Amino acid sequence: MAGSSFGESFRITTFGESHGGAVGVIIDGVKPGLPLGEEDIQIQMDRRKPGQSSVTTPRKELDEVHIMSGLFEGKTTGTPILVILYNKDAMPSAYNDIKDKFRPGHADFTFLKKFGIRDYRGSGRASGRETAGRVAAGAIARKILEERGVSVTAYTKEAAGISCRTIDFDQIEKNPMRACDSDAAARMVPIIEKLAEEGDSMGGIVECRISGVAPGLGEPVFDKIEADLAKAMMSLGAVKGFEIGSGFNCASMKGSEHNDPMDKSGFVSNNAGGTLGGITTGEDIIFRIAVKPTSSISKIQWTVNLEGEEVNIKTEGRHDPCICPRIVPVVEAMACLVLEDHYKRQEALHI
Amino acid sequence: MAGSSFGESFRITTFGESHGGAVGVIIDGVKPGLPLGEEDIQIQMDRRKPGQSSVTTPRKELDEVHIMSGLFEGKTTGTPILVILYNKDAMPSAYNDIKDKFRPGHADFTFLKKFGIRDYRGSGRASGRETAGRVAAGAIARKILEERGVSVTAYTKEAAGISCRTIDFDQIEKNPMRACDSDAAARMVPIIEKLAEEGDSMGGIVECRISGVAPGLGEPVFDKIEADLAKAMMSLGAVKGFEIGSGFNCASMKGSEHNDPMDKSGFVSNNAGGTLGGITTGEDIIFRIAVKPTSSISKIQWTVNLEGEEVNIKTEGRHDPCICPRIVPVVEAMACLVLEDHYKRQEALHI
Amino acid sequence: MAGSSFGESFRITTFGESHGGAVGVIIDGVKPGLPLGEEDIQIQMDRRKPGQSSVTTPRKELDEVHIMSGLFEGKTTGTPILVILYNKDAMPSAYNDIKDKFRPGHADFTFLKKFGIRDYRGSGRASGRETAGRVAAGAIARKILEERGVSVTAYTKEAAGISCRTIDFDQIEKNPMRACDSDAAARMVPIIEKLAEEGDSMGGIVECRISGVAPGLGEPVFDKIEADLAKAMMSLGAVKGFEIGSGFNCASMKGSEHNDPMDKSGFVSNNAGGTLGGITTGEDIIFRIAVKPTSSISKIQWTVNLEGEEVNIKTEGRHDPCICPRIVPVVEAMACLVLEDHYKRQEALHI
Amino acid sequence: MAGSSFGESFRITTFGESHGGAVGVIIDGVKPGLPLGEEDIQIQMDRRKPGQSSVTTPRKELDEVHIMSGLFEGKTTGTPILVILYNKDAMPSAYNDIKDKFRPGHADFTFLKKFGIRDYRGSGRASGRETAGRVAAGAIARKILEERGVSVTAYTKEAAGISCRTIDFDQIEKNPMRACDSDAAARMVPIIEKLAEEGDSMGGIVECRISGVAPGLGEPVFDKIEADLAKAMMSLGAVKGFEIGSGFNCASMKGSEHNDPMDKSGFVSNNAGGTLGGITTGEDIIFRIAVKPTSSISKIQWTVNLEGEEVNIKTEGRHDPCICPRIVPVVEAMACLVLEDHYKRQEALHI
Repeated sequence: MAGSSFGESFRITTFGESHGGAVGVIIDGVKPGLPLGEEDIQIQMDRRKPGQSSVTTPRKELDEVHIMSGLFEGKTTGTPILVILYNKDAMPSAYNDIKDKFRPGHADFTFLKKFGIRDYRGSGRASGRETAGRVAAGAIARKILEERGVSVTAYTKEAAGISCRTIDFDQIEKNPMRACDSDAAARMVPIIEKLAEEGDSMGGIVECRISGVAPGLGEPVFDKIEADLAKAMMSLGAVKGFEIGSGFNCASMKGSEHNDPMDKSGFVSNNAGGTLGGITTGEDIIFRIAVKPTSSISKIQWTVNLEGEEVNIKTEGRHDPCICPRIVPVVEAMACLVLEDHYKRQEALHI
Repeated sequence: MAGSSFGESFRITTFGESHGGAVGVIIDGVKPGLPLGEEDIQIQMDRRKPGQSSVTTPRKELDEVHIMSGLFEGKTTGTPILVILYNKDAMPSAYNDIKDKFRPGHADFTFLKKFGIRDYRGSGRASGRETAGRVAAGAIARKILEERGVSVTAYTKEAAGISCRTIDFDQIEKNPMRACDSDAAARMVPIIEKLAEEGDSMGGIVECRISGVAPGLGEPVFDKIEADLAKAMMSLGAVKGFEIGSGFNCASMKGSEHNDPMDKSGFVSNNAGGTLGGITTGEDIIFRIAVKPTSSISKIQWTVNLEGEEVNIKTEGRHDPCICPRIVPVVEAMACLVLEDHYKRQEALHI
Repeated sequence: MAGSSFGESFRITTFGESHGGAVGVIIDGVKPGLPLGEEDIQIQMDRRKPGQSSVTTPRKELDEVHIMSGLFEGKTTGTPILVILYNKDAMPSAYNDIKDKFRPGHADFTFLKKFGIRDYRGSGRASGRETAGRVAAGAIARKILEERGVSVTAYTKEAAGISCRTIDFDQIEKNPMRACDSDAAARMVPIIEKLAEEGDSMGGIVECRISGVAPGLGEPVFDKIEADLAKAMMSLGAVKGFEIGSGFNCASMKGSEHNDPMDKSGFVSNNAGGTLGGITTGEDIIFRIAVKPTSSISKIQWTVNLEGEEVNIKTEGRHDPCICPRIVPVVEAMACLVLEDHYKRQEALHI
Repeated sequence: MAGSSFGESFRITTFGESHGGAVGVIIDGVKPGLPLGEEDIQIQMDRRKPGQSSVTTPRKELDEVHIMSGLFEGKTTGTPILVILYNKDAMPSAYNDIKDKFRPGHADFTFLKKFGIRDYRGSGRASGRETAGRVAAGAIARKILEERGVSVTAYTKEAAGISCRTIDFDQIEKNPMRACDSDAAARMVPIIEKLAEEGDSMGGIVECRISGVAPGLGEPVFDKIEADLAKAMMSLGAVKGFEIGSGFNCASMKGSEHNDPMDKSGFVSNNAGGTLGGITTGEDIIFRIAVKPTSSISKIQWTVNLEGEEVNIKTEGRHDPCICPRIVPVVEAMACLVLEDHYKRQEALHI
């Protein structure tokens, strides 16, 4: 397979480039009879879209959701659902400057090596815009998971060198960083605004917490829950690391500290992060990802052009100085896709 | 699928429990005409086997490799290769004690929740012994990669609270920790030996470096190289985290620091860790995993039994006080499988 | 998987119902650098479209092809290609009559049993209109196969009780039956026109011949060329049988008659139909399919309604009295998809 | 994938050549808690084994079943089951004669073209012995299907030019042809015995009837029940054709004859053969396959050798003069695999 599909039983296939005709997704395996409207997807799409605040790009994308199949009288039919989002932007002449140069931190060089041909308008298939399809599919998975009592919540845990000290879910949508601590967010914002002025960017850490998940999901060997979550997250362009539960801290812990004891009421601690042997315990699944600073910056950088000559480059355009707030809904979407797929697989195993 | 297969074009399917008749693997997609003998696999199997030193379990497993198909006159035929390793141990009565109790840190509880039935002899399918099949398959992939000029080297970077200060590949197989710094290893060993005496265990960090890889491998969206590596590594029972290149450090870096510039001779730095947009740059691929302290410890711990009553448990048997040295060949094997699969996929794309 | 994808390395996923917003396909795995335009696909789509002659439905569908991704400056980029065909028809009130009745020969009853919900406008996902996506994908595969020197030609071999006596490829597109013998076609047409007047329909046999294919394609066990061709053909709604080479005639042949001898110039006969052990010999691949009479007829038939009451039904609308001429391009498309997939798989095996 | 796996949710992977160390199968996706012993599999294996009568090869293969994983205390655990059958025969010198020649009707030529290397002992991976793994897997699927009330029965319908006139399931295992009509069988046997004496072989038609299947199984587009059955059957080396229900007879039928009407008690006829739109109706699934005359005959035939020189060949050894009786259990096994897979997929769709 050429790598544009994800999931086994709840399976998505995305398509589209930043400056082609459209981006979107086919979702195959949605149960029939689910009430679904474009607004269910639009609400998540709007959380991902650019132009939401001073810490995201002021670029405007409408991202209007169109469902083209798989629905009848407001309900899913069990057949594949095509969600399409038309690209409205004309090809900006701004891209002429990058036509012959490899932007540092971008996939320009590797796409050319891989394909021998490169769509130099924006980042083509490597554009963050590709995640729109994932968010659309995740919105459907989320609807089903809500019926199961599962909630999936991601938030900025750290950004611009500032860490959150509290985790308050009510704060997440109330600050432009989607941080779980509004005080921390208030300290992050001016730092990032200043970076934006300087034409620079900064990274962060996003955490995700999944509650209400049934015990017993996940497969014992390759398709462990944390393996599928790791793949899902590391498939996002800006992510450089994934950890679950104790994560990298486990390296300096003893077994007697790390093992989660059980008592009558269940697990006493959750260093595991919600899985044992790759299978859910029923405790909250907690994982974190490392988000790199946005590669698109307007500072002058050194690179080479197609002829291998050293040139400098200044990425014009309006970019996110910190991608954390906009990656939050994408992380949630991917987590929903992994979970919903495993719910189905667990059911199929037992029949 | 039930989750026992890995890879698309170079595809493996493992089978076996720690105390069933055998463990092993089918490898489907090996090119015909490759010279291959059981000794090619045995050499890697011996690196994984228990009983190699004072910091690994003194338990003995022969792990004798048998190739049952796919070979003719010393060469692969292009048909599936079955590698089987017979289990020699009789079922030890030691397991009677854990029959009704959930060992902390183990998959006992989750297997019962998932399957409704549990093979309580050792860890069943969740046993580290399952990785024998992966190492066998990886040994074949490694042979092909060597023909391509690719080398895959993993090593303990940190363990027992001690970090390596140098990276010297020649030292790795010369110290029992498989550390890249023999001085550091010399400090790790007594700490771990003491932990073993106390019936406790400790975690660490293993790093892997892949050199000589062609640029252009990996798929742009879901099947990014780092996504497939992350899944491969997080599918190992003891792994709690994965990071590539700058990893979690990227969270506090600026874009102007993180982006790797290029000059005439190539990339000037490698914060990316060898991929951009999920596709190899040709630079070394460098990733790290967090290895949790072995769950099997002989200290008394609290847990519950099948009836939900609180009981204490003392895991008898001879276990690894630190699994890092033995996970090193498994990490290499999984990395080889990911790479070989993507070499094939890249070829198929262009034809 | 939910069954809307086909192929491994050249992989398609179709979507869409007859009366939803659109039908179409994502093709993933197309090699980069292939010159491709909408006209390359439109030409095949026009062969499939209704309203071409007196022996096909007079219904009009524009079937205008739109490529939404995977193209840049007239060439494929190696990323997924979305082809979409918008549905123009408003929902005809004609379908009110079938809303509560199961049309004989149609999937109305089974869709309700499977999904618990049924899109009663036309045949929903079971509509022949779904094959538009297949034809679009096949047109791309065909273009690549032509570069390889492979030609794929299907034609009506028998219809309305009349068998072709000669096989003349030049005649196929010159008669409305797409028969390989214009004399036979001339005898078929009046019979079918009369059936159409009576509100009835008739079946036939379509044959397909593939020339120029390399020897060595196909996998030895499950994914034999003839197995994948059979699946491809039997996945077309109207097909009740598939045979290759000698086909059902082999049942009364002796081994000494059936085995194809070889001499210096190659195979002396081709009872095999172009494969041995599931792998291409390099001889022409020749297979036939049995095409059932169109289920949609306007004669009065007996059936039951949703309440299980016996009712009669008269399918209004304009239907194909014989589907053979319009299934010909679909058969070719599916054959192209199977072959192109196996070309890629063969390449990946050897690397 | 390299083509040795079959099924999505109930997934098998076979391995092994006729003269390697062993043949067998991994079955992944078997529900936990199913009582299972080697005898459940052995009983089907014994139906497939050679040496059962005068119309099958007198060659002896023990085909002793060994289950190596996935079982605990007589029940399945939900983890992959390895069934292995060791090859006992030493490599017979008889094969020296065919080492450099392409046997007519065999895969010798195509394997060399595909792989560039050929295991000339017997037919290697193309050997009918590969089906032992399928029968083992099918025996497990059959056990589960029996719990569901599904019965799968295949039988010789025609052989040696003789057609069965009655269908009596009780007769099938009572005659050496596994024919559904003992009188017909009595006429087939002497013809085939005479053919065997002459060193020749003959083909036939095998029919399969599946009763008790739930309505609603199968996927609407590519993974139609009949498409998956066709692939399953056409993946058997000796099969040249597949038809369901009316099959090739549909070509000369009118829609008004072919459509199966419904009344209060269900479908009045079954030209469909148990599916509509690829989905089961609940009526019996009835399909037929064309079985070619065994390619291994001891009559002198013409072929070429590796140097392309014309030579004659006489396949020594003890071969089946008619493979129908021995293919019957393989047909049943493959049908069971298809059905069980679709039961699981249907369940996963709705959750």
